[in-house]
Amino acid sequence: MEYAVRGPIVARATELEKELANGANKPFTSVMKANIGDCHATGQTPITFIRQVLSVCAYPEMLETCNFPQDVKDRAKRLLGGCKGGSIGSYSASPGIDVIREDIAKYISERDGTPSKPEDIMLCTGASDGIKTILAMLMTGKLGKERAGILIPVPQYPLYSATLTEFNAYPIPYYLDEENHWGLDVKELKRALNEAKPNCVPRAICVINPGNPTGQVLTRQNIEDVIKFAKQEKLMVLADEVYQHNIWGEGCKFFSFKKVLSEMGPDYNTMELASFMSASKGFMGECGSRGGYAEIVNLLPDVKACLMKSISAKLCPPIVGQIVMDCITNPPKPGDPSYELFKKEKDNVLALLKKKAGMVTSLFNSIEGIKCNEVQGAMYAFPQIFLPQGAVEEANKRNQTPDAFYCFQLLETTGICVVPGSGFRQKEGTYHFRITILPKIEEMTDALERFKEFHLAFLARFKN
Amino acid sequence: MEYAVRGPIVARATELEKELANGANKPFTSVMKANIGDCHATGQTPITFIRQVLSVCAYPEMLETCNFPQDVKDRAKRLLGGCKGGSIGSYSASPGIDVIREDIAKYISERDGTPSKPEDIMLCTGASDGIKTILAMLMTGKLGKERAGILIPVPQYPLYSATLTEFNAYPIPYYLDEENHWGLDVKELKRALNEAKPNCVPRAICVINPGNPTGQVLTRQNIEDVIKFAKQEKLMVLADEVYQHNIWGEGCKFFSFKKVLSEMGPDYNTMELASFMSASKGFMGECGSRGGYAEIVNLLPDVKACLMKSISAKLCPPIVGQIVMDCITNPPKPGDPSYELFKKEKDNVLALLKKKAGMVTSLFNSIEGIKCNEVQGAMYAFPQIFLPQGAVEEANKRNQTPDAFYCFQLLETTGICVVPGSGFRQKEGTYHFRITILPKIEEMTDALERFKEFHLAFLARFKN
Repeated sequence: MEYAVRGPIVARATELEKELANGANKPFTSVMKANIGDCHATGQTPITFIRQVLSVCAYPEMLETCNFPQDVKDRAKRLLGGCKGGSIGSYSASPGIDVIREDIAKYISERDGTPSKPEDIMLCTGASDGIKTILAMLMTGKLGKERAGILIPVPQYPLYSATLTEFNAYPIPYYLDEENHWGLDVKELKRALNEAKPNCVPRAICVINPGNPTGQVLTRQNIEDVIKFAKQEKLMVLADEVYQHNIWGEGCKFFSFKKVLSEMGPDYNTMELASFMSASKGFMGECGSRGGYAEIVNLLPDVKACLMKSISAKLCPPIVGQIVMDCITNPPKPGDPSYELFKKEKDNVLALLKKKAGMVTSLFNSIEGIKCNEVQGAMYAFPQIFLPQGAVEEANKRNQTPDAFYCFQLLETTGICVVPGSGFRQKEGTYHFRITILPKIEEMTDALERFKEFHLAFLARFKN
Repeated sequence: MEYAVRGPIVARATELEKELANGANKPFTSVMKANIGDCHATGQTPITFIRQVLSVCAYPEMLETCNFPQDVKDRAKRLLGGCKGGSIGSYSASPGIDVIREDIAKYISERDGTPSKPEDIMLCTGASDGIKTILAMLMTGKLGKERAGILIPVPQYPLYSATLTEFNAYPIPYYLDEENHWGLDVKELKRALNEAKPNCVPRAICVINPGNPTGQVLTRQNIEDVIKFAKQEKLMVLADEVYQHNIWGEGCKFFSFKKVLSEMGPDYNTMELASFMSASKGFMGECGSRGGYAEIVNLLPDVKACLMKSISAKLCPPIVGQIVMDCITNPPKPGDPSYELFKKEKDNVLALLKKKAGMVTSLFNSIEGIKCNEVQGAMYAFPQIFLPQGAVEEANKRNQTPDAFYCFQLLETTGICVVPGSGFRQKEGTYHFRITILPKIEEMTDALERFKEFHLAFLARFKN
């Protein structure tokens, strides 16, 4: 099992931070961790409304003793009313607190213009937990030709490959088309599936939209094509839609798989689908709360009953993560005392991310030996690096993949920590890295300068 | 997979609550959920210090704007200093926040009088998550005779059987001795192990101390015997010690397996051991925070590296659960502004629980057809009920186990929700139920009266 975004390069970055703190002499003064979508760690500030609600829920005496906006107090009271004994210290039902499931269903209904039901909502311990739970449900428990096969994109977020390894499932990698904005081509899905069929029982297709690490935003047409393919092949659709608030590209729009499938009519709107959302990304970035939800539709009643039983052994997702999820899906409305500040903070975070998405794309494309698709959505750029043969040979000598060699050199020279593309898988013979667009804009501007310098020197070093 | 403490009887209890709310006419006016150790749900009040620290950590502006004791502010600052970007919204390292791991190691060192190291501490999403993680580590991934075998007590907390089923491991049940205060007899351990040896590779022994659902507290001698047995059989010891603060029996004392093993000298102090602790029980009862830790000692470095990698895919445990764990293991000290209130609240919770533990034991033993060992520790009584043959036959007719039949009848007649002993496993032909000692004392007194009336009527109904 490999989990690149927390892999050896991150361990080395942490060591370097300690060395710097102990006064070591390095060609840089601080380490920039651009390896993981950890928003607050890199300076993004929390949304006041969310934190005020949390603060009151944790210590309800504050309703009397401290000065908070009325809508914060009302929300806290409503949520505490949904907690047993009025305390966030109680377990909730395993799929989450009822009023929060209702708020989430309402959010989805309004987002999609198509109804969502509270009983289809399952709160979870971050989206990762939801994804693992649904993958576990799809396992056949069998080996050989009867192993469960799951289509996953390449490049992909390593949670998928790690979880499939853990469950002894059969990963069916399909390649995203780098030449075409990391698009998802149904011909490629068919190729991947047909090659895998003799070795497994295909059960589901995972799609990450907006893409991680690839940053593309699927068009509605593309989503329809995937749904038709899944229908034809009797696959459940697992839609990782945790970046639904993070849309940057001109003309790009987020369509949920649920919306598209619902609007495709009776042939499609009874298909099994799970869509995943997180409290950790978007404009809120509350990773530490471990909040998330899955909307799961059209399961057979027996299967759903089994799923509910399987989550009961986990007792319940953290209440604080559930509360964060509620504040995100049911934010202050125009006229509410917290609305103006909430809107300002949200818009500000999203505007800065959009600016950095553009900045990163154009900087990378201005450098020799790098090509980067537009960051249309999510929080990452995934540029391709064209490495000289000398560098590839040097990497081989060191028993490193060429992209890992490059990234370690980058780290040691500039203090910039990014994740080698091999951690996400990539087309044979191509090399990439993933960099987040989260660090502060001044820090990023400065880091990208150091990056450029390093890159050109690296090319020069191995060119002759 | 079965998970009794959230099983069908609990679903029925929830239905009954809704029926009552809709004005249904029942022989009771409210449902008493005594099925799960959910402290705050049944009226226990949170510890102020913990909640104030949480409140400030969630919204650090409160350091300036609201009036909190200085030690609360200092603690919040220290913990936020351990969070990346000073925010509880960041991911922590997968094994937890460094300063919290240090505080926990210090707590254990002081508790045991034997050193504990921060690098041996792994925070987790409730103790359940820690237990599952360590069990997963012990799996061989093999079937047949090479399946991993794990010794678990009977009666046991259903997390163990459910997890072993999920991992396809081989459970090796050993029976606790009801006639001897649910004691743990090494002869019985040997019997269980020898019977299982042809079918699996024994890897570990799980011990729950204080016992759940059985409420016994192991003596030091008993613990030594278990350790010697584990040493001889090359088993890792998994010590579920989440009720370490919940000791009620006269002359009973909590000894951690870590302490005893460390003090048994060089033959034993290098044995592999994991001890689990939770934020959900004790005097704090912060179930909803999903906090817990495992102390894991003497793993081979390669095994430990693998374990650390496996937890990295879960990103990190909820930060709020980690903070709760810190407040519990590093509480206010004499002289600190919060000390007096903290001590008063803690003592009060524990005194009430102790009183109820005694109350329950003596009430049960005063009733014909019931026998209940002393509740020496933890939060449950597990009385044996002697059912007339007529009741057993009636249960068979209804396709229920006799104890489930009894518990459902109890629920429908009195509104008291307890868990049938079969959910925890029990010796063939014996019947029990588990009842928590958590409901408010007035409520319990009243409920135990209704219980007695029900029980005697039940006996009378089936006696002829």
